[in-house]
This record gives sequence, C-alpha cells and structure tokens, in this order.
Amino acid sequence: MTKPATAALLFTGTELLRGKQNTYTPLLAAKLLPLGLPPAAAVTLPDDRKAIAAALKNALKEHALTVVVGGLGPTFDDLSREAASDALKLPLHQHPEALRAIEERFRKLGRVMTENNKRQAYLLKGATLLENPNGTAPGQFFVRGTGAKKRALALLPGPQKEWEPMFAAVVEPLIKKHFPPCGAQYSVRMALAGIGESAAEEKIRPVLDRHPATEFTILSAPGEVRLFASGTERDPETARHLGAKISAEFRAAIGEAVYSDSGEPLPAVIGTLLRRRGWMLATAESCTGGMVSDRITAVPGSSDYFAGGVVAYANELKVKVLGVKPVTLMKHGAVSSECALEMALGARKRLEADCAVSITGIAGPGGGSAEKPVGLVYIAVSVKGRLPVCKRFNFSGSRDSIKAYSSASAFTLLYQELKSI
Amino acid sequence: MTKPATAALLFTGTELLRGKQNTYTPLLAAKLLPLGLPPAAAVTLPDDRKAIAAALKNALKEHALTVVVGGLGPTFDDLSREAASDALKLPLHQHPEALRAIEERFRKLGRVMTENNKRQAYLLKGATLLENPNGTAPGQFFVRGTGAKKRALALLPGPQKEWEPMFAAVVEPLIKKHFPPCGAQYSVRMALAGIGESAAEEKIRPVLDRHPATEFTILSAPGEVRLFASGTERDPETARHLGAKISAEFRAAIGEAVYSDSGEPLPAVIGTLLRRRGWMLATAESCTGGMVSDRITAVPGSSDYFAGGVVAYANELKVKVLGVKPVTLMKHGAVSSECALEMALGARKRLEADCAVSITGIAGPGGGSAEKPVGLVYIAVSVKGRLPVCKRFNFSGSRDSIKAYSSASAFTLLYQELKSI
Repeated sequence: MTKPATAALLFTGTELLRGKQNTYTPLLAAKLLPLGLPPAAAVTLPDDRKAIAAALKNALKEHALTVVVGGLGPTFDDLSREAASDALKLPLHQHPEALRAIEERFRKLGRVMTENNKRQAYLLKGATLLENPNGTAPGQFFVRGTGAKKRALALLPGPQKEWEPMFAAVVEPLIKKHFPPCGAQYSVRMALAGIGESAAEEKIRPVLDRHPATEFTILSAPGEVRLFASGTERDPETARHLGAKISAEFRAAIGEAVYSDSGEPLPAVIGTLLRRRGWMLATAESCTGGMVSDRITAVPGSSDYFAGGVVAYANELKVKVLGVKPVTLMKHGAVSSECALEMALGARKRLEADCAVSITGIAGPGGGSAEKPVGLVYIAVSVKGRLPVCKRFNFSGSRDSIKAYSSASAFTLLYQELKSI
Repeated sequence: MTKPATAALLFTGTELLRGKQNTYTPLLAAKLLPLGLPPAAAVTLPDDRKAIAAALKNALKEHALTVVVGGLGPTFDDLSREAASDALKLPLHQHPEALRAIEERFRKLGRVMTENNKRQAYLLKGATLLENPNGTAPGQFFVRGTGAKKRALALLPGPQKEWEPMFAAVVEPLIKKHFPPCGAQYSVRMALAGIGESAAEEKIRPVLDRHPATEFTILSAPGEVRLFASGTERDPETARHLGAKISAEFRAAIGEAVYSDSGEPLPAVIGTLLRRRGWMLATAESCTGGMVSDRITAVPGSSDYFAGGVVAYANELKVKVLGVKPVTLMKHGAVSSECALEMALGARKRLEADCAVSITGIAGPGGGSAEKPVGLVYIAVSVKGRLPVCKRFNFSGSRDSIKAYSSASAFTLLYQELKSI
C-alpha cells in the first residue's frame, strides 16, 4: 500500500515566533481535508532565507503538496520566493504580466511604486502565476514530477484577505486538477462526558484494532473526551457504510457516555433537550464563579432556554438571593450536599425556571481544611416534579482546573438528569 | 561571531492539524525570550512517531533548546517519549519515582489506574524527571554535549494547566542553569487596557526606534494589549538602567492606558484596589452571561472582595432580582444605558456591595435590529457615594468575541472608575 498523500503548511514571519498568534492552520486544514490532502506538518519560521529553504526541501520530500503562506511582499524580510528558488534549484525570472498587474494596482491606488515592489513580480521558472485581486503580491503554483512522486508548491501572500480568496479561486482548482481525489472520505466524531481519557481509550481499543486503515484521534479537556475517526474508501457507498459501522461500534463500546456525534459541545446538547420541552434553566454557582453560565451563554440562541443565574460567592447572598436556610449553613456549612440542594431548589424557584443546577465547593488554593479539602465540590440538580439529585466530587489541581472540572461535571449531571426523564 | 542560541518548539497532536487552534507559541515565546533563547521554529506534527523523531533530530541539530509539548499521556497516540528515544538513540526506562507519583495521584482521585497509565513513567536514560502536580504525565529534561554544542530537550505534557506551572517551577531554572545568559538580561512588560494594538504600536514606535538592540513584542487579546521588551547588556547595572529607561519611555508614550507592569491580569489589579479599600464588588451581567464573574473568580482570594453576581438573561430577572423598573425596559429596552445603570445600581444595593459593574448588549448572531445591531453593548459602573457612569460600545465579530470584548471593556471601565477615586 502506498502512503496516502499529505500536505505541509509553512508559515513565515518572525512576528509569529514573537507573540503574534498564528490562526491559519485550522483554516487551511478545513480546506485541505476535503481535497484528500490532510496537513501532516505545520511549520512556522522566522524571516530567514536559509531556514525557509531547508524546511521547504524537507517538506517537498515528504508531502505531495506544500503550502507556504507569507514572505511574498516587497520588503527585505520577504524571502519565500528566494528560499523556494534555493530549495528547488530553480531560477527566478521577472514575469511581465505580474509586473503589469502590480504597476496597474499602484496606478489605481494612486500610490508611487518603489523599486522594491518589482521584486514581487519574480516567479519561479515554470510556475503558474496566481493573481491577487486583493493585494500587490501575486501567488505562485509550481508542479514537478508525476504519479506518487508528484510534488506541488503553492506560494501564497500572508494577509488572510489575500490568500483566502486566492485559495478558493485558483489554488483549489489547481490542486483538484493535479491531485484528483482517489476515493471517498468518511469521518466520525463523538463527544463523551462522565468518562476519563484512559478509560475511554481502553473501551475503544478493540474498535481501533479492527480498523487499522482508519485514522483515530482522542482529545480530552476537563470533564470531556472527544473521538475522531477518518479515512478514505474506494467509493462513496463503501465510505458511508464504514463511517456508520465505526460510529455504531463506538456507541456499542462506550454507550451511555456518548452525548453527541455532531461535534456539538455539551451545553448545546443540553440546550436542545431543554428547547424540545420548552423548559427554562437557572444556575446557582459558588466556586465556579460564573463559568457554568458563561458556557451556557456561549451557545447562540441560549436565551430561549436560559433564564439566568446567581453567582453567590458570599454566604449572605446564598441566603438572601437563593433562599438557603441560615441553619443549613450553620449546621453543614456552605460546602455541603444540603447547601447544594437548597441552592438548586432556590435558583429554580426564585429565577422562575423549570430546572436548575448548583455548584458549591472549594476551588483553592486557600480555604481548605482537613475535613473539607481544596477540590471538594457538591453539585445538585433540581428538576420540577422530580426528586433532586446531588453528587460529591474530589478534584485536584489549580484553581482554574477545579473550576473547569466542576463546570464540566455540572453539565454532565444536568445532562444525565434531563436525558433520564 | 557564533550564531546566537535559539529554541525550537514542537507540538504534537493530530487534532492541531485537524482544526484545533494551537495557542502555545506566543505563550512559550514570552517565556523563552527573556531567557535569551528566542524561538526560531515552531513545528506542529501529527501523532506519528516517525515524523516526530525526524523533526526532533532536525531541531536538535539547529537549536540549543528543543521544547516538545504534548504526547506524554497514557494513550496509544501519545508518542513523544518514544520519538525522543528514537531521535536520541537512547533507551527508555521505567522511573520508580515517576510510577509512584502516578499511582499516588490515582489513589488520591479515587480512580482505578489502568495498565496504559504506566507508560507515563518511562523516562529517557539520563533525563531529569519533572514532577507534574497538576496531572499524571511527568515531564522530562535531557541535556547532551557542552559549550556551543550543548543541546537540551524538554518534554512537557500537553495541557496548559500542566505545562505552564511545570515550566515556571522546574524548566526555567534548568534552562538558566544550562544556558546562563552571557551578560545581564533586562525585560520590561506592560499591560494596557482601553487602547487598540495599532494605536499602541504608533505611540511606542519612537521608543522602538531609539533602542534598536532591544527585542520588542506586542501582543493583543480582546480589549487588552501587552508589550514586552528584552535584551542583554554587559553588566547588571547597565541592564537594570536600560530596563528602567525603556519602562519610563513606555509610560511616557502610553500613559493612562498602562494598568500593570508586573504581568498581573486586570481582574487581579482591580482586586488589589478593592482589597485596599475593604470594598465588596457585585456584577450584573446580561450578554456576557457570567464571563465577567468567571474572570473575577479566577483570581485566588477573590472571595475577599467579590460578593457575587447575577446573570439576568431573561428580562423578568432584570426586574425581579436586580430591581430594574419595568417602565425602563418598556421605554428603552434591555439594551440601553438606562437599563445598564439600573442593573449596576440594583446589583450594588441588592447584593450588598460597595460597587458594581453591569453589562447589557446583543452578543448575536441573532437578536439584532437596524436600531440596535449585534455588538451594541452598554456597560455601567456604580460606586457608592459617586455618580454612576455608563459607556456605549459597538463591537463586531462572533458571539464569543463580542462576549470577550464586552468583558474586557467592563474591567477597563471598572478599573478607570476605581483608580480615579
């Protein structure tokens, strides 16, 4: 079996190694995956001709397609053209059409064209000129070799407003022409809650072993595990069938813990359950400090089912705003199942909702004791017409991480309650 | 002249090439620049042992320090340990202390330790174990060679909450020990609020031009701009002097907008102002949905000055819990300066605080109109004994980004009010 074709992404710009966030990899991945050329390396380099040339040489050895973004401008630190010429051992020549386009653009803008702008009209010998209607630097597309040894290099300008339209208009058609997709893609994604990364992996291990040609990824965040599977088959029918089969095998292996196979986050899935019933949700947060309502309201349209929440950090507010009984706080303390249950009930009644979730605990680093250590958290859910539930957790880690695990566990408990109705 | 020492960053994880945004390069750059090891390559690779090993070999050739983030977990796709062993031609061995720490962590969490978790206890022969108090996978630090040929490799766990504390506690001291800066380093950092990245850059441009030997970085996040300056001088006295000079020039150029030169986030700076006065703060959030209280409570010890908050998503709650007048909602709507002012006043009084901040707006994508478009946000601050203030904003972008800009602006307005007293 030949190795499947992949793409390499090269980004140039010292600023990307000095604090500026590079946001292009996910954008290019979304464009290249459907073309059957998954990115298999993303490299960010400074404006250093030797370093860029060396990385280009490496990339051209391994990957069918190499996309370089940046370094095509007119200034001294724009070196991608020269580096490509070094790597491919190909001369650059001034392209008359490219020069005319640059001159034309300057005329239109009423700006004086300086000598260094002419550098932008230099193309690799044999490369296709990619017009840039949104900037001065044109792109280039160069192809060498045939069959499994075919190599393509796309040089694109750095600004997103320039390379994105160029990619759609001219690069994508060239890629499709030179690398017609052999076969049909399938992909499966699944999100799990209430299960750890290792436990999830043990359960799906037999699925992975049964499908060695499928690409699997497992990704975990506090309280959440995500699975991805993808691959290519001869024809769309086989691909669809295999995708469905892997999806079913995942569900059989993991069962209960799967809450989504569409990539939707848990707060959105909970939103769908609430919307279906026409229910309103309320929150009562102590140690999570608003993180739960923040995540609920990250979902567009959440105002349809989210009434609101109270962050009752001070004990007086737990009494005054949520109606927790002073005797409960006195006898059991604020971090107790009794308090969590009264907070959930209070939020549901006082915020006029149909269900509510509450969280009370010790996020640390201070405030812990032998009896109630940092990381002790109680989460309660109150749903109208049903018995309330409360669960106790012992998290560890930093303040942020205890907040994040508490929030994720609140969503898991709320989801399990809503689903069980 | 010998080439100055540089660092390479390697990130592993197929998900980072399939759509997940990698945000670590700017964070690591900010840590490595002051250590005199500027990143000169950032490479993202899939969970592919051969590809990681090949990239590691390349990196170790060129760069004094190579930092690998990710791939140390227990699952099949965690391959950084094995790839490092291949690249360095060094065996792995099970480290008894690492195994004990992992077992201990599982005991504490009350979770069952599966067999695959033991993989995390394998260390490169001769490597230093880096303890991980926030997760199971320990890090490793390996050094080979001397002088200009000295090479160090740091293997760090993927989650930010694990590698960041590990870097500060043990990696930075090891780097300093093995690569003592030749000369004396100075570094200046400054955090700004209420000013955009371009405006900040224009103002500091003359400072940059006056100090060509200093390395400058400008970093922006919603509502926030950070400046870094660093460099090396012959002796500590000269370095200290130049650092102080650049710091003073920054302040002279930017003035008012500087809120911190210690790296403290704005919510922590606000906390210090509140604690100094013995004041309590309350929040009343609509469109930010809890993001403001979430960020306030991210600061350890915030219970000293944060009473709590109300997320009043539904209009009825604005009336019932915060005391906004129904006639205000009728005449001006929930997204109005009138409503914002009543929300702030209501939160301050009803949550028994000394000051309060409120946010009401349209985060989108739905809910906008010609008169009140998506991104229209009002923020008000009410401080006891003072006239309340309200500011109107027009943000653009996604729901997330409007929430983030609104939160950042709420902190800026609150800070400006508290500072002016």
